[in-house]
Formats: sequence, structure tokens, C-alpha cells
Amino acid sequence: MSHLVVRLLNYTPKPIETVYTAARTCYSGNAPSDIWSKRTTEFEMIKLLDKTISSSHHSILEHILFTFSVEGLSRSASHQLVRHRLASFSQQSQRYVEMDDAEFIVPQTFQFTPEAMKIFKETTEQAKIAYKRLRELGIPAEDARFIMPNATTTNIVMSMNFRELWYVSGIRLCRRAQWEIRDLFMRIKSELHSVPELTGLAEYLGPRCETLGYCPEFKSCGYYPIKEKAIGD
Amino acid sequence: MSHLVVRLLNYTPKPIETVYTAARTCYSGNAPSDIWSKRTTEFEMIKLLDKTISSSHHSILEHILFTFSVEGLSRSASHQLVRHRLASFSQQSQRYVEMDDAEFIVPQTFQFTPEAMKIFKETTEQAKIAYKRLRELGIPAEDARFIMPNATTTNIVMSMNFRELWYVSGIRLCRRAQWEIRDLFMRIKSELHSVPELTGLAEYLGPRCETLGYCPEFKSCGYYPIKEKAIGD
Amino acid sequence: MSHLVVRLLNYTPKPIETVYTAARTCYSGNAPSDIWSKRTTEFEMIKLLDKTISSSHHSILEHILFTFSVEGLSRSASHQLVRHRLASFSQQSQRYVEMDDAEFIVPQTFQFTPEAMKIFKETTEQAKIAYKRLRELGIPAEDARFIMPNATTTNIVMSMNFRELWYVSGIRLCRRAQWEIRDLFMRIKSELHSVPELTGLAEYLGPRCETLGYCPEFKSCGYYPIKEKAIGD
Amino acid sequence: MSHLVVRLLNYTPKPIETVYTAARTCYSGNAPSDIWSKRTTEFEMIKLLDKTISSSHHSILEHILFTFSVEGLSRSASHQLVRHRLASFSQQSQRYVEMDDAEFIVPQTFQFTPEAMKIFKETTEQAKIAYKRLRELGIPAEDARFIMPNATTTNIVMSMNFRELWYVSGIRLCRRAQWEIRDLFMRIKSELHSVPELTGLAEYLGPRCETLGYCPEFKSCGYYPIKEKAIGD
Repeated sequence: MSHLVVRLLNYTPKPIETVYTAARTCYSGNAPSDIWSKRTTEFEMIKLLDKTISSSHHSILEHILFTFSVEGLSRSASHQLVRHRLASFSQQSQRYVEMDDAEFIVPQTFQFTPEAMKIFKETTEQAKIAYKRLRELGIPAEDARFIMPNATTTNIVMSMNFRELWYVSGIRLCRRAQWEIRDLFMRIKSELHSVPELTGLAEYLGPRCETLGYCPEFKSCGYYPIKEKAIGD
Repeated sequence: MSHLVVRLLNYTPKPIETVYTAARTCYSGNAPSDIWSKRTTEFEMIKLLDKTISSSHHSILEHILFTFSVEGLSRSASHQLVRHRLASFSQQSQRYVEMDDAEFIVPQTFQFTPEAMKIFKETTEQAKIAYKRLRELGIPAEDARFIMPNATTTNIVMSMNFRELWYVSGIRLCRRAQWEIRDLFMRIKSELHSVPELTGLAEYLGPRCETLGYCPEFKSCGYYPIKEKAIGD
Repeated sequence: MSHLVVRLLNYTPKPIETVYTAARTCYSGNAPSDIWSKRTTEFEMIKLLDKTISSSHHSILEHILFTFSVEGLSRSASHQLVRHRLASFSQQSQRYVEMDDAEFIVPQTFQFTPEAMKIFKETTEQAKIAYKRLRELGIPAEDARFIMPNATTTNIVMSMNFRELWYVSGIRLCRRAQWEIRDLFMRIKSELHSVPELTGLAEYLGPRCETLGYCPEFKSCGYYPIKEKAIGD
Repeated sequence: MSHLVVRLLNYTPKPIETVYTAARTCYSGNAPSDIWSKRTTEFEMIKLLDKTISSSHHSILEHILFTFSVEGLSRSASHQLVRHRLASFSQQSQRYVEMDDAEFIVPQTFQFTPEAMKIFKETTEQAKIAYKRLRELGIPAEDARFIMPNATTTNIVMSMNFRELWYVSGIRLCRRAQWEIRDLFMRIKSELHSVPELTGLAEYLGPRCETLGYCPEFKSCGYYPIKEKAIGD
């Protein structure tokens, strides 16, 4: 069975310098290229970044773009992922790529119920055999894929600017988020964390409750109290 | 087996008057509300609309929104559809809606190959049985759906402004587009066509070749010649 | 001197029914057109709307579009307004519309300082005279406008869906927002409020502090405490 | 008088490799990170890029972002520029930055008409003096700016992905585009051209007629014939 792999393929270099230059441009008579070349210490830049973000001036975070290789995501999760519209996706096409060697994502809940696991394996194995036979019968790939299950994996190149990455992480890192897409964003955060110049940015990524100071859902997972409880009277 | 149904649920009233007012506002010293209330004959308004569109001033078309009920689309096609980012989608969730009564879209290519059709029916029927058993075993709906095939139908409420509807139709009404999504946009055009005050707008919807004057693909379907052949030297 | 006028020109009819249908489609096995035609009482629909909004399922609010005529806004404010990117604007062009009869917005702060008011009147009057002379000298309108001041008024047809209208109002209705753009959004809210079927929606429009439960700015205006004070330990 | 300066501040490294990886991911069973690390020769990559663009698969171009420092643009042009919504802008604020040392953009048409030039200089000089006096009188900067002319310069940090840069250049590099914004995009193209690894991408930027094969305006500048003339019958 398959496992999700996430790689940070590429990103805007000097990201802190870039958002610092953007932020300073708004409040300065100096030219952006001067601010860029005479930039201050990393400590000062991060201090300004902190202040800018906490005062909701988030648009400056759009100037830095992150590109990820997402490998082995189920089509269930990819259908959900591409609903984020302020991002760019290039996804493996089931119209053009043959599904003969299809792999599948098994949800954890199957792993504790042997009969469920057996059903999962039989159904997905059967789908692969059926797919091959349909192709032999001359059914085009774009139609044969109709019998492939949601568990089938897909690959995606995804780019998001940091404002959107931060916003989406707020939703998808919530403990109540669907487990596979939460896993994806935990790996994304982890990828950023492992690059020294991105560690500071990675720290901003977290569930919305950490930013809001309370849980915005109906029922809290317990990590933060809901709004009504957090804000006394 | 299931069939796609498209209904125009709702739309901005007085659409021609609305885009006329927007277009005139750009080139007039009069207030938009004056232009709106003293608007001219439908003939004159459509003449201006034609002129505005053919000179690429398309942003005026964004002021009118169309909301469709899309019922019985396969998850293959819905995954493709929601990639259009300048639109709003509310889609039936497989995390919350049980798949016990799932229906399936059969591609036409299956219908001429009895063995393929047999495989399709067996595989999809088997998926439904497996889904029910998984639910009985305590697998949550959000995980049991992993074994459901792409052919499974979904419902979507989709809103698009007319600029985007026109742009997307250009791509999706091409004879080389995937058949199910082409069918969807033919039904969308047809829905607009059947409302008297929208017939004029529906006429704008067509494959890109009709607007460009040539086929923008590598190989033409024959309806229009490719660019190199259309534009002589 | 000129005054801002805002008119609700047009909007998606049956807005509550539309967002209700979108919300229910996500969690129901029924077709959207069935939900639409068998919709429940207004009371039940608004209850669902409330629940949906408070659980952050805001995308359903995108299915309803509102079109406003904004008349007599300064070019200072319009430059700021068009920065909202999830909206559609058709603005009076200074390249095509002559500025002979230009009108001007006077900030309130001038009105309590007679010398400032005198300077304002002289400068703007002088600009109009200069503009006319430049046109006589053969300078094209698109270049003559370079000497016109930010105070010059403009007209805009603006369309926003309700999700964006709600988000933007959160920022612009703050007491710390720039006064002219705050005035614009107060008039927008007021326009919605005056239409019986929109009164309920208008109630959602307010500064972000009302939604958050605390002031997200550095310094509060006093209406709500800042986050650190609102959320005890 | 002031002059426009454009600097390419930053961009996604390895841009050709990035879009190549995105394009190949759609049609390959290989993982994006494999495609990325085993990428082929630049010649082969550009060949694929060419093919992908000419078959309208433009979304792959969204994975590379370019950040520019735009210095000394008139507020006339900046108001127009920020209308492009698929871009990120951080602009010098007239609410926070004092206009004491304001500089101005003089359109070329003034330079051949001495009287016009005299009017321009007097009006803009007068505005600066009035601004200073208003500030002394206690008028806040956000209100004093109301008398500043459109010719006043501004600075902007602007980021656009390459798909949007290509689309916007198509409109703004047309000889009929407003001269200042055309100048901006010529400098943008020139900035890209001067970086060896971006020269190939810069070649794609040009007026729409070069892509379409005909002029899409009502009247051609003569560079390309209009559609009716280009496409024979």
C-alpha cells in the first residue's frame, strides 16, 4: 500500500527579505530596491514581520511562493485539495496516465478491522484487474478510469503563496480536519521547518485556534476552549 | 444508470441592463444609477454589448452571476470541474452523505462492448455492497468512500459570472473536450437558451474556435482550420 | 462640493433560498433543484444560515451577488477600493471622460479650519481651470488628467458576492478605517438594510471585532478590548 | 521631474525546470520529485514548454513568480495597474508617507507645448506648497493628500506569476495601450531579458496580436491586420 510523500521543490529565495521589503515599501518614502539592498538584520526583519502579521496586514505574505511535490495522495483528498482556489495545481491526469500500476491509500480505520481490510484489498485489486481488461477491450483510458476507486493515488505539483499557505493550514491543521489532508499539511509544515531560512515562517503555520485564541468550531477538540468560553463577560 | 441533469436555479435579473450600465459607466459622466434608470432600447443595449465584447472589454460581464444545479455528474468530471477557480461550488460531501444508494455514470464507450458493460456493472455493484459492509463493520463514511469508484455521481450547486462562463465554455464546448464535461456545458448553454431574456447571452457561448476564427489545438476536429492554415501569408 | 451616493442596483433574487440550497446540497442526498423547490420556512433557512456561518462554512455565501452604483467617491478612495480583488469594478475612465465639470470630495477635517478650506477650494478650482486650458492647447484627456487632484470624484459599478462583502465590511467598518471608505461601506450596509428580504443579511455586516469577540488592531477604539485583554488566562 | 525605474527584485529559481516538472507531472506516472531531479536538457525542456503553451495549457506557468520593484510610477498609472487582480501589490501609502518631497511624472505631450509645460509645473508645484501648508495647519496626511495630483509618483512591490505576466503583457504592450503602463511592461520585459536564465521566458511577452496572429482591437496600429482581414474566407 502507498504512502504520502511531500517535498518542497522550490520557493522564492530570501523570503524574509522579500516580505520585509514589501512591508516597508508601504510606509516609507524610499524606493523598494533601496530597502531591498540596505535591508536590516534578520532579527529586525522578523520583528517587523511579526508586527505586520499581527495587525492583519497579510497581503505582504503573497510575495513569496512555495512549490511542493505531493506524491501518493488519494483522489479523495486531491478532490478536496484543489478546492483551494488561490493556489496552482498541476495534477497527474487519469485521462493520459495508465492506471495499470495504480496504488492505493488505506485509511487507518481499516487497519484495525481485518474484515474491512480484506474488503479493501479485494475491491481495489479487483478494480485494477477490471481496468486492465477494459483497456484490452478497447475502452479508452479516460473511460476505463470510471471504475477506479477514490483510494487510487495521484501526484500533484502545488504552488501556494505564504498568505494562502497560512490560511489553508489554519483550516487543515485542525484536529477535526479530514485525516489525509491534515497529514498533507503537517508534512508541508515539516518540509518548511527543515530548511533553516524557512524555520521562522514554518512557525506561523498552525490550526486557526492558535491564531484566534479560541476554537472556531462547534465542539472543541480540547486544545482551545470555544469562543463563548474563552471570552468571559 | 444515472443521467446528468442541469437546471438554471437563479441568475442576476435584468442581465443585459446590468452589463450595459457597467459598460456605459466607464465612458460617461453620468451616474450609474441614472444610466440604469434611463436605459435605452434592448436593441441598442445589445449593440453596445457586442461592441464591448469584441473589443475585449470583458470585465463588464462579471456583474451578472448564474447559479446552476448540477445533478448526477460523475466524480471524475466533478474533480475536473472544480479546477475552475473563478467560480463557486457547493458539492455533496462523501464524508457526510451515505453512499448506500449511489448511482453511477456509464461512459458511452461501454455501451457498445457487452463485456465491458458487464465489468462496469459488476465492479460498481460490488463497490456498493462493499461500502455497506464496511459501514456495518464500523468504518466511518469518510473512510468507506475510499473504495467507491470515480463513476459515482455527485450533486453540485455552481455559480459563475458570465465572463467566466464564456471563457470556460470556450474550452469545454470544444469537440476534443472530455465528453462528460462537454455535455455539462452544452446543457448549461441550453438552459440559458431556454429563458427568453437570456437567449442573446447564450449565443455567445461556444468553442474558442468560433471566437478566435481558427482552432487553437494541435489537431483540428475539422470545424475550423488551425491557426497556421487560417492565417495566410 | 460633492457627496457620496450609493445605490443597490441589482442582486441575486431569493438570496436566502439560494444559500440555503447550497448549504443543504453539501449534506444531503437530494438534488439541489429538489431542495430549492421544496425549501422550508424562512425561519428554518436563517437558522441553518446562522449555523453554517458560525462554523466557518463561508463559501456558500459566494452564490449571491450584489451590484452597487457608487457615485461621487474620491479617486483616493477608489484607488483603495479597487484593491479588493474578489470583486468586479467598472469605473469611470479619466482617459475618456472629460474633467471639465469635475467635482471634489472635501474631507471633514478641512471644514473646521477656514484657511485649510480656502486652500482646498483654490487648489481644486485651479486644477479645473488648468485642465480646461491644457485641453485647449491640444493635450489629450489621458494626459491632462495628470494634474487633477485625488479629491476628484469618480463613479463605479461594483459587484461583490456576499462572502467578500462580509469580509471587506469587517475591515472597512472598523472605526480606525479611512473615513471615506468606511462611509462607503456604511452606506452599502444601509442599502441592504432597507430592502426587506435583505435585512437579515445586512445584520451580518459589521467590523471584525463583532465577529471575533475582540479588537484585532494594536490599539482598540474602545468598542471591544484587544485579544490579550479579552482572552483571560 | 521623475522617471520610472523597474527592477526585478526576486523570482522563483530554476523557472524552466519548475514549469517543465509541472507539465510532465500531468502526463507521467513518475513522481514530480523524480521528474525534477532527473530533468532533461534545457533544449528539451524549452521544446516541451513551447508545445505546452501553444496548446493552451497555460496553468503550468503559474508555478513561477516574479517580484518587481516599480519606482516612480504616477498614481494615474498605479490606479490602473492594481486593477489586475491575479497579482500582489504592496504600495507606498499616501496615508502614512508624507508628500513633502513629492515628485511628478510629466507626460511627453506636455514637453512639446511650452505653455502646457508651464501649467504643469505651476500646478504641481502649487500642490506641494499647499500640501505643506495644510500639514502645518494640522490637516492629517490622509486628508492633505486629497489635493495632490494624479501625476504624483508612487512606489510598488508587485508580484505576478508568469501566466498572468504573459496575459497582462499581451494587453499592456499593445501600441494602443496607455503610454505609461506600456512603458512599465516594456521595462518588465527588458528586466527579464537581461537575466540569462530568463531570456527565453521574456521572449514570450508581447502584444496579443503576436500570439493571436491578428489585431484584436477595432483599429489596428498597422503591425498586424485585424481579424476580418487576417482570416480570409
